Amino acid sequence: MKLATIRSACRSIRACNPRPGSRFSGIPRGCPPVGTTNSRLTLRTASTAASSGTSPTFTANFGKQHGEDDWSEFNRSVGEVVQNTKEAIATLQRRNPGVQPLLVILQAGEDDGVLEINQKIAGKIGVNATQICLAKNCSEDEIVEELLKLNDDPGVHGVFLHLPPASLTSRVLSALRPEKDVDGISDLNIGRLVRGDMSKGFVPPMASAVLDLLGKHDAPLKGKSVLLVGGQGPPRLALQCLIERSGMSVQTNHWNSKNLKTQVMQADAVVMLSAGNADILPSWARPEAVIIRCEPALEPDDDIIELSSSSGLGYLTAAYRAQNVVQSCSRWLQEQQYRPWHLHSLKLQPLNPVPTDIEISRAQTPKPVAQLAEEIGLLPEELEAYGRNKAKVRLSLLDRLHSQPDGKYVLVAGITPTPLGEGKSTVTIGLVQALSAHLKLNSFACLRQPSQGPTFGVKGGAAGGGYAQVIPMEEFNLHLTGDIHAITAANNLVAAAIDARMLHEATQSDKALFNRLVPSVNGVRKFSPIQISRLRRLGINKTDPTSLTPQEVSSFVRLDLDPSKITWQRVVDTNDRFLRKITVGQASTEKGQIRETGFDIAVASEIMAILALADSLEDMKSRLARMVVGTSRSGEPVTAEDLGVSGALAVLMKDAIKPTLMQTLEGTPVFVHAGPFANIAHGNSSVLADKLALKLVGRDGYVVTEAGFGADIGMEKFFNIKCRASGLRPNAVVLVATVRALKMHGGGPNVSAGAPLPKEYIDENLSLVAGGCRSNLQKQIQIAHLFGVPVVVALNVFRTDTQAEIDLVCRLAKECGASDAVPCQHWSQGGRGSVELARAVEEAARRPTNFHFLYDTEMPILEKIRTIAQRVYGAEDIELSPEARSKIDYYNQQGYGALPICMAKTHLSLSHMPDRKGAPTGFVLPIRDVRASIGAGFIYPLVGAMSTMPGLPTRPCFYDIDLDPVTEEITGLF
Amino acid sequence: MKLATIRSACRSIRACNPRPGSRFSGIPRGCPPVGTTNSRLTLRTASTAASSGTSPTFTANFGKQHGEDDWSEFNRSVGEVVQNTKEAIATLQRRNPGVQPLLVILQAGEDDGVLEINQKIAGKIGVNATQICLAKNCSEDEIVEELLKLNDDPGVHGVFLHLPPASLTSRVLSALRPEKDVDGISDLNIGRLVRGDMSKGFVPPMASAVLDLLGKHDAPLKGKSVLLVGGQGPPRLALQCLIERSGMSVQTNHWNSKNLKTQVMQADAVVMLSAGNADILPSWARPEAVIIRCEPALEPDDDIIELSSSSGLGYLTAAYRAQNVVQSCSRWLQEQQYRPWHLHSLKLQPLNPVPTDIEISRAQTPKPVAQLAEEIGLLPEELEAYGRNKAKVRLSLLDRLHSQPDGKYVLVAGITPTPLGEGKSTVTIGLVQALSAHLKLNSFACLRQPSQGPTFGVKGGAAGGGYAQVIPMEEFNLHLTGDIHAITAANNLVAAAIDARMLHEATQSDKALFNRLVPSVNGVRKFSPIQISRLRRLGINKTDPTSLTPQEVSSFVRLDLDPSKITWQRVVDTNDRFLRKITVGQASTEKGQIRETGFDIAVASEIMAILALADSLEDMKSRLARMVVGTSRSGEPVTAEDLGVSGALAVLMKDAIKPTLMQTLEGTPVFVHAGPFANIAHGNSSVLADKLALKLVGRDGYVVTEAGFGADIGMEKFFNIKCRASGLRPNAVVLVATVRALKMHGGGPNVSAGAPLPKEYIDENLSLVAGGCRSNLQKQIQIAHLFGVPVVVALNVFRTDTQAEIDLVCRLAKECGASDAVPCQHWSQGGRGSVELARAVEEAARRPTNFHFLYDTEMPILEKIRTIAQRVYGAEDIELSPEARSKIDYYNQQGYGALPICMAKTHLSLSHMPDRKGAPTGFVLPIRDVRASIGAGFIYPLVGAMSTMPGLPTRPCFYDIDLDPVTEEITGLF
Repeated sequence: MKLATIRSACRSIRACNPRPGSRFSGIPRGCPPVGTTNSRLTLRTASTAASSGTSPTFTANFGKQHGEDDWSEFNRSVGEVVQNTKEAIATLQRRNPGVQPLLVILQAGEDDGVLEINQKIAGKIGVNATQICLAKNCSEDEIVEELLKLNDDPGVHGVFLHLPPASLTSRVLSALRPEKDVDGISDLNIGRLVRGDMSKGFVPPMASAVLDLLGKHDAPLKGKSVLLVGGQGPPRLALQCLIERSGMSVQTNHWNSKNLKTQVMQADAVVMLSAGNADILPSWARPEAVIIRCEPALEPDDDIIELSSSSGLGYLTAAYRAQNVVQSCSRWLQEQQYRPWHLHSLKLQPLNPVPTDIEISRAQTPKPVAQLAEEIGLLPEELEAYGRNKAKVRLSLLDRLHSQPDGKYVLVAGITPTPLGEGKSTVTIGLVQALSAHLKLNSFACLRQPSQGPTFGVKGGAAGGGYAQVIPMEEFNLHLTGDIHAITAANNLVAAAIDARMLHEATQSDKALFNRLVPSVNGVRKFSPIQISRLRRLGINKTDPTSLTPQEVSSFVRLDLDPSKITWQRVVDTNDRFLRKITVGQASTEKGQIRETGFDIAVASEIMAILALADSLEDMKSRLARMVVGTSRSGEPVTAEDLGVSGALAVLMKDAIKPTLMQTLEGTPVFVHAGPFANIAHGNSSVLADKLALKLVGRDGYVVTEAGFGADIGMEKFFNIKCRASGLRPNAVVLVATVRALKMHGGGPNVSAGAPLPKEYIDENLSLVAGGCRSNLQKQIQIAHLFGVPVVVALNVFRTDTQAEIDLVCRLAKECGASDAVPCQHWSQGGRGSVELARAVEEAARRPTNFHFLYDTEMPILEKIRTIAQRVYGAEDIELSPEARSKIDYYNQQGYGALPICMAKTHLSLSHMPDRKGAPTGFVLPIRDVRASIGAGFIYPLVGAMSTMPGLPTRPCFYDIDLDPVTEEITGLF
Repeated sequence: MKLATIRSACRSIRACNPRPGSRFSGIPRGCPPVGTTNSRLTLRTASTAASSGTSPTFTANFGKQHGEDDWSEFNRSVGEVVQNTKEAIATLQRRNPGVQPLLVILQAGEDDGVLEINQKIAGKIGVNATQICLAKNCSEDEIVEELLKLNDDPGVHGVFLHLPPASLTSRVLSALRPEKDVDGISDLNIGRLVRGDMSKGFVPPMASAVLDLLGKHDAPLKGKSVLLVGGQGPPRLALQCLIERSGMSVQTNHWNSKNLKTQVMQADAVVMLSAGNADILPSWARPEAVIIRCEPALEPDDDIIELSSSSGLGYLTAAYRAQNVVQSCSRWLQEQQYRPWHLHSLKLQPLNPVPTDIEISRAQTPKPVAQLAEEIGLLPEELEAYGRNKAKVRLSLLDRLHSQPDGKYVLVAGITPTPLGEGKSTVTIGLVQALSAHLKLNSFACLRQPSQGPTFGVKGGAAGGGYAQVIPMEEFNLHLTGDIHAITAANNLVAAAIDARMLHEATQSDKALFNRLVPSVNGVRKFSPIQISRLRRLGINKTDPTSLTPQEVSSFVRLDLDPSKITWQRVVDTNDRFLRKITVGQASTEKGQIRETGFDIAVASEIMAILALADSLEDMKSRLARMVVGTSRSGEPVTAEDLGVSGALAVLMKDAIKPTLMQTLEGTPVFVHAGPFANIAHGNSSVLADKLALKLVGRDGYVVTEAGFGADIGMEKFFNIKCRASGLRPNAVVLVATVRALKMHGGGPNVSAGAPLPKEYIDENLSLVAGGCRSNLQKQIQIAHLFGVPVVVALNVFRTDTQAEIDLVCRLAKECGASDAVPCQHWSQGGRGSVELARAVEEAARRPTNFHFLYDTEMPILEKIRTIAQRVYGAEDIELSPEARSKIDYYNQQGYGALPICMAKTHLSLSHMPDRKGAPTGFVLPIRDVRASIGAGFIYPLVGAMSTMPGLPTRPCFYDIDLDPVTEEITGLF
């Protein structure tokens, strides 16, 4: 096999099978059958060294049958290594069917005996051996280029650099990955050997072979002295280390030393290195001494068939090399397995008073994300770094850890909040900080990516707060890894496609449209795959464009969108209230095709909901294709695929589907991924992030994920929509409450953003607290129990809370059915302040769960809505507008009746009336309208008007946001 | 100095000086004056080993003056090392004023004599020594955490792990960066030592000390035998290697060996390692033998003041350690210097026929971007990877290479193109592939980032084509590193701020506005810095909000924007023609504040022009603040800073300002950065990318940058706007021509996209070619000569071109004044096809240039426009509309008169009439309107109507774009 063969073989393999994999995976057993068929491979008679005299050379250990090709018989040492290694492979293959250790021999110039010996031994053992031949005078660059390819090839387990010594330059040696350096000659592996730590490196095969021979000698050599003659550098040092470590003492000497003879006479064994023409006289050695002559190179054309020391040692060396390859393969497989975490948490020294969020974030140096990834068992190839602090994680992880059991799955939800928010994100982050950094339990937080709109509007950053944050908070709050930008681009491409298509249909004949949509290229018309999909949906099972009837052409080219029934809006990730309702198409170039439409905030895009619910790239792609953007004049739904744009959408979203890894202030891992609107969509972070995290934390770990708004909204959708899509089952719910919100539900005065808090919220007031617990808190606990999941109440403690209030909440929460209820101080103390919560969650998650959905999707849409309204919200009944009724009929008719329900309701009350606090009853829930996100896969009834585009106040946050151009530090984010 | 002190010192330093730098940079000379003032540091009498007997211990080499503190006197060896190292520091500091080598001693538990000796020696030498004390029982985690901080600290040059042996675990040893492992104990450094490659590692100081003593002995030891007794692992191996490498032979033995006495008697020198209580009898040794006893630990409380072997060796070891620190510092400084490239180019094997662009791109495996970065001399900390194939490069590079001379600066421009484009990008990429991969000259291509709009519209990808491409082309064409998305976000935040502000001003009193803009926080009102800037511009020099008069309050709170004079448009990076003209604010929440406006494509945003022209973060920030978004009713310009949004804009753009590093098909470096529209803006890639690239290629290298459209537009703006902003001066222009375009200019029929080419363009037609050369080509060459820059004509060869046509173009181009004219075949051959062009460019760039601007910016606006029209376009004169005249007056009055001119003119003709090909004369250029981009810094006259929002055709590119969800491969991008 020469260079050209291998090269073109590689190329062709890559072309046929372009997926990540070995270049060589298609090549069968690399080594041609040598040995019996190849007269060049021979066994020589004893070399000049030990051909006569009384000293037994190690040939004594090689058995007696000369000239036979039965290795296990004629050479005990080789046979043993071959046998052990074969067994090791068998064990590996039992556990990992299909795995095949592969040695690549990188060679410059002609084939030689070393090559043949290695191929033969590899064949005996069952290690694939492939040869890459470079020209004899190949450059360092060429060698390095090959090595870099071999490094990246997961199918290559070992590389034997069969190159002239002059080619083994520093650059070459350091180019080869130490994990594949089965000859143990890289600096790092030599260093490991010298230090005696063999958990990672490799013992040089020649050294193993010599040691084997020394150990096999009849007289035990332990405590004896070994003389190393000649040689230098790594090979000799490695040998010396190993001999000494096995309990012998070592003398070394040069070939031209004057006291060589004396030393030989005193030695129990003599190992000759780099002897060249030099030799020792057999008569010098003591009769019982072992004499081994190591010659790195063979003379393959020497056609003698008897056993020789040098070819024999060559065979033994090759066997140990193959053994190293198997070891490397085994380590690689081990690395592919789930690895327990070695999480190194970052220390936190909370200050009092608590500084601003950005100050706290900036004071902590995050671990490099690559280090964090390694600590939690991610492989380097599974990580795509975006700068130093964040990285996307590839979905291939799910395949790799397919058989790894999931961890415990914990949802953080809240009671009905005040307009100020009750701190679900900080509880989520505080909880994982406590679990990972303090209780040393693997845990992952899965958070939603915040919209940039509110960051510059009223809300500011959303990375948690105080000492429970994701860092660096400015990266979390700004572009992150561009997922929302990708959604914006994809969403707006659909919008542009809709309006452009309507224009073109309005101004062109069927024929002109057909000629443009299916153009003749070099005289041939062809449908693109996406057009064939549309034809199929139209019931036209043709693939030849010329065969369509005029009627078929017309239905194919005309989507015939009804401008008044287009449901697709454009999006921006900016709080731009003036885009809520606009008129487009007013330029003369659009020929009067004006229409009213609007922009939503980007996170309200259906594509965001799809990103959050998809469980693979394929699933995302088909959901994107299914998205309904409007209705034709004849009442048919028109999809993104009809527009021909769904492939492009998948392309735009191909990186967004990978969750982004970041870390908390205490260095524990966080996935940030997706952030769909919590009213018109389901308000939960992504299925994929949760799935990846559940594999990574392992059986005894915890994944803590957060649902938007109160439990009546976020949690209900988490269970009924997200868990249905993912197939995942939660183990516990953490229900976040604050004394402030409880007082509000207990009858306290109105709370509103910007206004000072009334005194009821600052002074102790146990009766308001009790009222809140017995109404809203109790009801939200009951909602969780509807799904059969235990609840731990987390009281997010504020400075103004009194001990009596705290105690009261915890007592009443337990009376209301919570498994446990604990105060948490993560905001001021970090994870340490949430240790009690972490213990309570651990306890609750240990209980057997009895999870079940609230409704069967096969129920009629109306019944599903009623079930949620009555059982979750506490409504008497529901009341549908005529529009809502007709939409439900339409969706049933279109076959969308079995989708789950995503209620769009205010988050400020369990009812539809934001001012009805506590646990309202006796109300009838009005359903104003019903809409559908077919790609995301849910029907969303509208309960009142929902704004999907926030506005900017008179003084937006951006007034305080600034960048120091010298230090590059950001100020004003909070 | 105990832990607490250091720690709080670190913290406080970081707080005061948060810029990247050493944690320790604020601490003066780390070591307290020990020695004379510290009775604990002492010199002991000879140890048990060599206190009597005839064998001279190495104390003989340490001089005779006991108990004195003059090191250079009492110990020759220590003194020499101290002196040499002091001189090395002085040399370093002469070349690098302010540099200060720093050793950090990481210690667990109490101070001891080793610490004190090291501090004292460091003080003598002038190496800073800082101690970090961890608790005696500190965990591996704590040690590693400290090491990771020290690794990242560029001010720390060496770390001495003064820890108990049990703490020197594999994890600890591999955590320390080998570059700072001045004790040479990491596996990698041991491996290097064993292999004998000391260009990177460090000789363990103890080994240096022993070798020094052996070498200093009166009898030359070369060829003598050294016996090493005891010891094991890395320290002994290191010593053995060094001794052997210096020409001596080594014997090793255990302390309890039975033949120890014999060996001692034969040895020329005996080195005792890890002796503990063991010893050799002085009588064993030969009289002239040197005996050295190495004891790693001292007993510091032993209060004897005489010289001892172990403390003496301790001093010498400390001196060598300090020497290693200086060596490390020197290497670090060396690394900061400009490094010649070691570019490893990727091999290309062009196929015939040439496959599609995406197929070619996918067939080549790009180098990891970190490897490319290293090859071109970037430091790891200057790189922010975005996945494996692209990375942002930090601007700090400009400081680091400040004194490095720039390379040659080459502009690629074109003749007036056909609507099909003439391949400037492919010429640019082919040229750098030729320069770097074939002529082995450092070169960098600087390209514009393409808008995503056309990628999904009509144009497809823009990464070059054929075998001259940037790879991976899909990453180049899609989100890249998010810069355009950042521009979209920033641009639209300004737009949202404008409309929201108008709404708030329209619906609130002065007082209400003031109360909201300058809210009382805890009873205190404060202006934000951005508000103080506005006050200054209003001439109100007050900082106390309560001191403003009602009139001042009113002018402060009311921008009073005239809705009809708002020039700021929203942007999307999508071809969305229906957004060209829209009405916004139609929702009831906007209270009737409707107005007409429009969206541009994102690359037409002024923020894109600013990104391309800014030469630092600070410059970008102040340009963003200066952007004029409209005019007040009283005629005053209103800026982004007036809106309070400019700090937020800088925050949104902080990463976008860093150029993105990618590579060509042949693995040569490319910067992709900025891509402003080439008509209403200046159409050139960024100043910063060019500046970084010019430093990186070095004096003899080439930076090839591309200007949009024909030379009359892109090149003129490159010279008059970009070079004026950057201060850079071009060395040569490459003018791209095609036979096709020349034929068109020579009188050939119309060429239009989508239609088949007329036969004149397929068959040989020398007279049309000649006509094109003598008109458009000649004129464009003359334009370049107006600026004093030599021109090389690159004929981008198509398959249909005949040899006679090619020869004719090359001959006529030279007759028209080109320095050279060569055909190039990069599209079908890669860099090899452009070698001739590369040689011609090399030759042209070698000539002295006589660059000058076409006009002085102090000329009146009208004169500047006329100069361009007459001298560049060949117009008779210009003719201004009344609107244009009044705008010019207004700009003059506002002080914008000295800005350069950015003509917005068709690129399809030298004139304003797209169908006038060749070199039209005798026309009067009509100036319809004049606008200004104050932040970007130019006035742009409009010659005809310019579309700033492309549309989608009936069958956009996206029909063919798809993603394979399994392989993740993209199809249909071209």
